[in-house]
Amino acid sequence: MNSTIHDPSVTAVDITRITASGAMQTADMVATEEPLEIMMAWQQYGSTIHKNISVTMRTPGNDTSLAAGFLFTEAIIKNAPDIKEITSSPFNFNKILVVLHEGIAPNLQQTDRNFYTSSSCGVCGKASIDAIKTVSAFRNLKSNATISAKTLYRLPQVLREQQQTFDQTGGLHAAALFTTEGSIIFLQEDVGRHNALDKLIGTSLMKDMLPLSSDVLLLSGRASFEWIQKATMAGIAIVAAVGAPSSLAVQLAEEAGITLVGFLRYNGCNIYSHPERIIFPG
Amino acid sequence: MNSTIHDPSVTAVDITRITASGAMQTADMVATEEPLEIMMAWQQYGSTIHKNISVTMRTPGNDTSLAAGFLFTEAIIKNAPDIKEITSSPFNFNKILVVLHEGIAPNLQQTDRNFYTSSSCGVCGKASIDAIKTVSAFRNLKSNATISAKTLYRLPQVLREQQQTFDQTGGLHAAALFTTEGSIIFLQEDVGRHNALDKLIGTSLMKDMLPLSSDVLLLSGRASFEWIQKATMAGIAIVAAVGAPSSLAVQLAEEAGITLVGFLRYNGCNIYSHPERIIFPG
Repeated sequence: MNSTIHDPSVTAVDITRITASGAMQTADMVATEEPLEIMMAWQQYGSTIHKNISVTMRTPGNDTSLAAGFLFTEAIIKNAPDIKEITSSPFNFNKILVVLHEGIAPNLQQTDRNFYTSSSCGVCGKASIDAIKTVSAFRNLKSNATISAKTLYRLPQVLREQQQTFDQTGGLHAAALFTTEGSIIFLQEDVGRHNALDKLIGTSLMKDMLPLSSDVLLLSGRASFEWIQKATMAGIAIVAAVGAPSSLAVQLAEEAGITLVGFLRYNGCNIYSHPERIIFPG
Repeated sequence: MNSTIHDPSVTAVDITRITASGAMQTADMVATEEPLEIMMAWQQYGSTIHKNISVTMRTPGNDTSLAAGFLFTEAIIKNAPDIKEITSSPFNFNKILVVLHEGIAPNLQQTDRNFYTSSSCGVCGKASIDAIKTVSAFRNLKSNATISAKTLYRLPQVLREQQQTFDQTGGLHAAALFTTEGSIIFLQEDVGRHNALDKLIGTSLMKDMLPLSSDVLLLSGRASFEWIQKATMAGIAIVAAVGAPSSLAVQLAEEAGITLVGFLRYNGCNIYSHPERIIFPG
C-alpha cells in the first residue's frame, strides 16, 4: 500500500536518462496536465440553465480559483458576489460547476469567440484594445503605486526560490503577486501560462482583493497580449516579466495605464510603458 | 520618407532601459502580435457558405501556412487537396480566407470546443487521447526513423544560430524540422507556441511532405499536450523539446508511438517514450 499523500499537480513517469556517463532507466516527475471543463448554472424564467463554458488544459490544484478567475477575466461574470458556489464533481476532478446567485445571468455574448476580437470594425490589435477598455471595470484606474528599481531586481530571485518548493518538474509557468516593498503575497503555477494568471486573479477575486492597483505582478516568462488583458481586468498597475513582451502587450499596457517591465534581471530591465512608477536610482 | 523594407514580424518601440550604468531612453524591437481571423468558404446545395472559424493571436508572416496547418491539425480539413485557394484580404492583413474545392465540406462538428475534449465519456486525459487516436490520419504510423544521441545533442545549438537570424526580439517560440542526420529542413517562429507548430505543419502540408515520419521535430520550449497532438496529426515520430514535457504529452506520445525527448542539452537528455529510436552511444 502506498501511504504517501498524492499531489495531483505532479505525475510520476519512467524515463530513459542519457548523460555523459551513460543511459539509465529511472523515475522522474512531470507537471500534470489535464483538461478542466468549466460549467455554469443560473436561474432564468424560473428554471435552471446549465451550460458548458470552456475546457482548458491545466495543472490540477486551485481549480476553484482558476474557474472564478477565468470567468472574471473573460468578463462572463462581473464580480465575486455573482457567484453562489463553485463545486467540483466528486466523480470527475476534471469538471467544475460555477453556480450564480438568483437574478444574476452570465454575459455569454462573446464566448463563441474571445471577446476582444469581436469588435465590429474588424479584427486588428487596435480593435482588441478598444474592446478591452470598454469591458474592464477598472479601465479608468488611477494608481499611485511605485517601486524602486532595486526592489524590482530582487523579485525574480524570490520567485525562483518559491518555485523550487512547488515545482519539481521544470514544467510550470508562474504568476506571482508582490507588494511594492518586494514581499511576495502569493504565487500560482500551471502548465498553461494563462491559467497561472487566472488562478492568481481568481484567488484575489474570491478574497475581495481587487483591484490589485497597489501590487506588482511578476510573470516567469514572456508578456503576451492575453496576460496584459487579464492584468487590465484585475486593475493591476505594475506588471514585470522575466522575458520579452509582444507588440500588442506593449500597446495595451500603454493605453491601459499599466507600467510594463520586461527582461527583468538582477541588475537591469526594460520599461515599455509608464516608466514613472519605477523609481531609479531606487 | 522611410525607404527601409518593413518586416511585419517585428515592431519598433521606445523604451526606458535601466542598466548598472544608468537609465536611458532608447529604441528597441519587440515581436509583433496581432490577431489573425481565419475564415472558410465552401459550396453546399448550390450556394457558397462563409464561416468564421477561429481567431488566433499570432506573429504576422507565413499566414497561409498557419491557416492551412491550423485547419489540418484541428481535423477541420483532411488534406492539402481539399484547399482550392487561400487568400488574404488586401484591406486587412489580419483576415485570411480558405476556400475549399467543390464537393469538399469542412468538418466543423467540433469547433465549438476543441475536438479532443468532446468525448462522450466525460472530460479526462484518457478521453482526449482516444479522440485524437480516432481522428489522426496517421494513427497507425510505423516509422523506422532513428537518430544518434550525439546528433540530437547538436540540434538546439543549430536552432539557436538560425533563430538569431530571425529573432531580434527574444520573444518568439520556434518549431524546427530536422533530418535524422541533423540538418535543418526549415524553422518557423511565432509569439504563440501552437502557431509556430501550425506554421511548420501547414508548410509541410502545402509541400506534400506529410507524414513527417522520417524527420525530427525540435521545440524551443516545453512540450505540452497540444504540441504532441499536432505532431500526431502530422505523423511525426520523433519530437525533442528543450524544456520539460507535461504528463498528458508523455501519455499521448507513448500511446501514439512517438519518441518524446525533453530537457535536450549538448550532452544529455531525458527520453519519455519509445526510446528505441535514440541510438546510444551514437
